[in-house]
This record gives sequence, structure tokens and C-alpha cells, in this order.
Amino acid sequence: MIVDFSIAPVGTGESLSAYVAEVFKIIEKSGLPYKHHSMGTNIEGDWDEVMAVIKACRDRMLEQANRISISIKIDDRKGVTDGLALKVAAAKAKMS
Amino acid sequence: MIVDFSIAPVGTGESLSAYVAEVFKIIEKSGLPYKHHSMGTNIEGDWDEVMAVIKACRDRMLEQANRISISIKIDDRKGVTDGLALKVAAAKAKMS
Amino acid sequence: MIVDFSIAPVGTGESLSAYVAEVFKIIEKSGLPYKHHSMGTNIEGDWDEVMAVIKACRDRMLEQANRISISIKIDDRKGVTDGLALKVAAAKAKMS
Amino acid sequence: MIVDFSIAPVGTGESLSAYVAEVFKIIEKSGLPYKHHSMGTNIEGDWDEVMAVIKACRDRMLEQANRISISIKIDDRKGVTDGLALKVAAAKAKMS
Repeated sequence: MIVDFSIAPVGTGESLSAYVAEVFKIIEKSGLPYKHHSMGTNIEGDWDEVMAVIKACRDRMLEQANRISISIKIDDRKGVTDGLALKVAAAKAKMS
Repeated sequence: MIVDFSIAPVGTGESLSAYVAEVFKIIEKSGLPYKHHSMGTNIEGDWDEVMAVIKACRDRMLEQANRISISIKIDDRKGVTDGLALKVAAAKAKMS
Repeated sequence: MIVDFSIAPVGTGESLSAYVAEVFKIIEKSGLPYKHHSMGTNIEGDWDEVMAVIKACRDRMLEQANRISISIKIDDRKGVTDGLALKVAAAKAKMS
Repeated sequence: MIVDFSIAPVGTGESLSAYVAEVFKIIEKSGLPYKHHSMGTNIEGDWDEVMAVIKACRDRMLEQANRISISIKIDDRKGVTDGLALKVAAAKAKMS
């Protein structure tokens, strides 16, 4: 499945990049295919794999903040294992 | 933590209520505090408790559909255990 | 269409209820059918009507905070005009 | 402001790329800075500019489908006008 997620501390200040950097490190170490964008990160893997990464990001952020906000969007399609690379390309191919 | 989530099959037809009914049954059996609204369900519990319920809903829906879409929003605040009942009330109390 | 939305300031502190109260007042004054839940508010109306309310909430919050975060989810179905009242009921009716 | 959004028809079939292609065309013609990812599109602009693009995508999709689902996430920060290029870079710079 492909998962898009974002996580942020609530009330720690206006700049979030130092917190996001911690999350980026955890995602990188996970070994799962991922891609950051300006509003979140796409990760691909099985339910348990991806959710373990998001939980690790949450556990880390709760060490730095008393309240956090998480947003997760999932596209779960049987038999698709390389969606991260192919989804945008599939739509672009149909644009002409 | 308080979790708002919605889950829907992709491509099975325009009406979703029969699928949502299956999800409602799983949520009810979980024993966790919850509240349905027109665009999703609020559930309160620990990470593992709530995520187990959402995974069960997903597993059930993947028996009925080849592709599903899930949306999850989390408010995780240390020391808050009755947020489902109190959050709207706290804001309403400050409206005057 | 039915819209679920939430709005929060970034970096103003851990408690958000005073900000949410301002938003509740704007929603109430709009005259559109709405329902608050612990993670957001459902509103029903035409695109322009609902988006004008959300923009007014955003404009108000930008008077109080330098950075804000908004989340919007829309279910837009032709011919449905009382979805706010009927969606949960339709799924519940199929639970037995 | 930076906006992440996705839009999909409900009940038209399992493959969505032909619908997404129509949306991509509208986004491209808008002239606003944007970036597609596997779960949505980031766009940057003023409220009215960005919302007009999303509304145009919605109007187009309602010509092709009777029911559609839209998800929008907004990061609105005063004084930031090049967030699309800078946000990921700012977090990456803090990773070491």
C-alpha cells in the first residue's frame, strides 16, 4: 500500500523543520521506499511495516512535544507493489 | 489519543453505506469509545488499540473490494484520556 | 456537498480551544447546517457557500496567528442535499 | 499558502488515472507552481487562486462522475511565498 503522512508538534513554535528532520531520519533508516513532498511523505510497504515507521516517528516526536498532530492517507490496492513510482506516470500518460 | 478515520472502497459503486456498515460493526465490537459523524468516526484509545481497529476494518473491506482508500487524523496529547467528550465542550465554553 | 474541516494555529501554544471558539462563532453565524465533532466540523452547502465560511475562519485565525493549518475533506454527490442528517443513518440501517 | 489536494470519483471503477489526467491538465493550465506526488498535488498561491483551480478540477470531474471525493490540506504562513521549493530543503538541512 502507498501511504502519505505528515506529523507535527502542536504549540512548540512556528518553525517545524527541526522536528521534521527527526522524522526524516527515522523514515530514511526504515529502508522502505519513500518520497518527501512539501506537505508530507509518501511511503510504500505492508500495513505493519509502514505503521511501525509512523509509530516510531510519533514516539520520537512525543519526546520533544506534549501534543502532536498526525495526518495519514492510504491507497491500498491488491497486487500493486510499485505504486510509488508508477501512479503519477500512469496519469501523465493519459494527459494527451 | 483521539483518532478520526474514514475508509471506503474504490470502484465498487456510488453507494458506500453497506461497506460502512461492516466497519461500524467492527468499531462497535472493539469496546473503544467512539462517535460516528457524516464524514468519519472518532475513536479514542492507545495507539495500538486504535490502529488494531482500523486494521481490522481495512482487512474486512479488502475482502469486499480490490482497492480501498483510508484517511486518518490523530490528535495525540499527553495526559488527555477523555478528549472525545471534552474537546467540543472546551471550545464551546469559550465562545461567549 | 458535505464538508468536514478543521483549522488550527501553528506555534501559538498547546491549547487550541480559544481559537476554535472563534471558528465556531463564524460557522454558527453562517446559517449553514453543521455539526461539530472532536476532530472537526461537518458543514453542508454549495461549494461557494461552504468555502466562503472556511475562508472567513481562516481570515479570522490569521489575525491571531502567523501560521495556520487547515484540513478539508469533501463528499460531493449530485442530488444529495440532506447528507448531514442521512449518511450515518444509512450505514446504521445496514448493520443488522 | 501551500495546498496539498487530491480528488477522485466514487464508484466509477478501480482505475482512476484517466480522471486524474483531466485534473493534471487543469492544474498545468493554471500557471501556479505545483508538484505532483503519488497521493496528491502540492500547489502554491493565494487562497482565491488555489481554490479556483481546485473548484475547476471538481467541476470537470462532476461532468464525468456522479459522486466525487476531495481531500485538501493547507499550510498558510504569512510572508512565505516560495514554500513549495523550500520546505523539504529546510528539514533536510537540519538532519545531520
